[in-house]
Amino acid sequence: MKCRRCGERAVVNMRQHKLGLCREHFLEWFVSRTERFVDKYGMFDGDDRILVAVSGGKDSLALWDVLLRLGHDAVGLYINLGINGHRYSEESKARVERFAAEREDVPLQVVDVGETYGRSVPELASERPGRKVCSLCGLVKRHIMNRVACEDQFAAVATGHNLDDEAAVLFQNLLRWQTGYLRRQAPVLPSTHPRLARKVKPFFRFYERDTAAYALLRNIDYVYDECPYAEGATTILYKELLNQLETRSRGAKQQFYLSFLQARQEGLFAQGSEELELGECEKCGQPTTAPGLCAFCRLWEKS
Amino acid sequence: MKCRRCGERAVVNMRQHKLGLCREHFLEWFVSRTERFVDKYGMFDGDDRILVAVSGGKDSLALWDVLLRLGHDAVGLYINLGINGHRYSEESKARVERFAAEREDVPLQVVDVGETYGRSVPELASERPGRKVCSLCGLVKRHIMNRVACEDQFAAVATGHNLDDEAAVLFQNLLRWQTGYLRRQAPVLPSTHPRLARKVKPFFRFYERDTAAYALLRNIDYVYDECPYAEGATTILYKELLNQLETRSRGAKQQFYLSFLQARQEGLFAQGSEELELGECEKCGQPTTAPGLCAFCRLWEKS
Repeated sequence: MKCRRCGERAVVNMRQHKLGLCREHFLEWFVSRTERFVDKYGMFDGDDRILVAVSGGKDSLALWDVLLRLGHDAVGLYINLGINGHRYSEESKARVERFAAEREDVPLQVVDVGETYGRSVPELASERPGRKVCSLCGLVKRHIMNRVACEDQFAAVATGHNLDDEAAVLFQNLLRWQTGYLRRQAPVLPSTHPRLARKVKPFFRFYERDTAAYALLRNIDYVYDECPYAEGATTILYKELLNQLETRSRGAKQQFYLSFLQARQEGLFAQGSEELELGECEKCGQPTTAPGLCAFCRLWEKS
Repeated sequence: MKCRRCGERAVVNMRQHKLGLCREHFLEWFVSRTERFVDKYGMFDGDDRILVAVSGGKDSLALWDVLLRLGHDAVGLYINLGINGHRYSEESKARVERFAAEREDVPLQVVDVGETYGRSVPELASERPGRKVCSLCGLVKRHIMNRVACEDQFAAVATGHNLDDEAAVLFQNLLRWQTGYLRRQAPVLPSTHPRLARKVKPFFRFYERDTAAYALLRNIDYVYDECPYAEGATTILYKELLNQLETRSRGAKQQFYLSFLQARQEGLFAQGSEELELGECEKCGQPTTAPGLCAFCRLWEKS
């Protein structure tokens, strides 16, 4: 297959777009496409300060890289969860720090959960054997991203979620018809409260294999391993099932997610009664629907 | 595994219900559960005349069998589509006629598409190479079922769709977010026009393996082969994917479909603009949203 732009040998073949490109033109295409989607979905403006949540994986480092190349004021946020299995947190932190150092020390903020709050995520999880680690970890990360973004007045928090991630979550939400989640799942979540940061997913239209190709072709050194707690996670199964569909019918994943966004935009869903009034947590002040303490602050109360 | 009712060896193990039963108790359970769902979902009353669409396959013959055992006035309708591949129509018709004959000649109506309308389904399809045979065949069957039910004043048309069928169709509708279909997919479709029959699916809560077990244990002689045109149909792929989910998480298929029904009942979907005024076809008089001829009557116009 040849590059559609220059006729050289294509190194990336995006079957869902019927498009093959050489290294150079793929990297160009990938960056300009990100820019187009940032504009199209009104994610942020050129002079906005963006907080990029970086885990050390391919998607988030690729996102930081693209935003920097586009000239955005993109500050990294690494959250050290304290996960020791496979030296996961150590390895991922090293990758993130190296990424920043290699780029003339672009600004990086590091929040260490154990140091800041007294217990790491695995320590917290061990106190709550009934609760899934991934759900607890998600809560911790969302709280910290939001806190840093609000305290330092970032225009938005950007995360590296790609189309495979979003399609898998949509599938998961549909398997139990979790209507609250279905109504809210979106590439842009506006701020609906002064202490709730805007959230954006600039890569939500890229297939995972294309974000991986970008990271590889840009020689970004990222953590290959999944978090050890993610092993056997159902989202991995959902991704596999959607990939089987994709193999059979090219573009199926994309169509599944984009037609969902379109159906919702065209008014498929009725107004939800779930849209609750947001109060403020008595301890941290972050918005919460719970009375008293928010779910994050309740984590740290000794039970 | 032992039968939960009598302690004998279980021959059917329904993992989604954590229930094993011996032959006798399974057959009893299956029949009474059908009755319960007919009542619960308000499908029809005890003295209603029901038209059962029978294809010769396990689900529809099992349904006819159960309704007869429950004492319903259930008349069979066999539509001869004229599909010669694997002698499909011949074989299935023979099974249906034998089923009726073995039960003291319970009433069976046969409509032969070729004889009645001049062309069989494969002949029709050969005139329309751009159109999928299964979609065309579905249109023909729906028209004929509705016509017979209305002309002979049946209270409802019952079809043998099981939970695997319904979940696969739901999945298909979600992959493209076909909002009109999503709003309408239901185990009971009420009559919204004097010439539109009520449609019910009494088996919609049974897994396919359980309707197959019923047919086998009742020694119902049914057509094993799929229709030759269904080979490679996407619904077969969707069923496989949902079965992979089920293997991983018991009851997943059931939860997917039932939580959909619940979410809709709880008002997830906004009122659709698709709910169009129904007119009447100029030729056959059946309700249609199209002006002039309905989609069925247009099939027979020479193009």
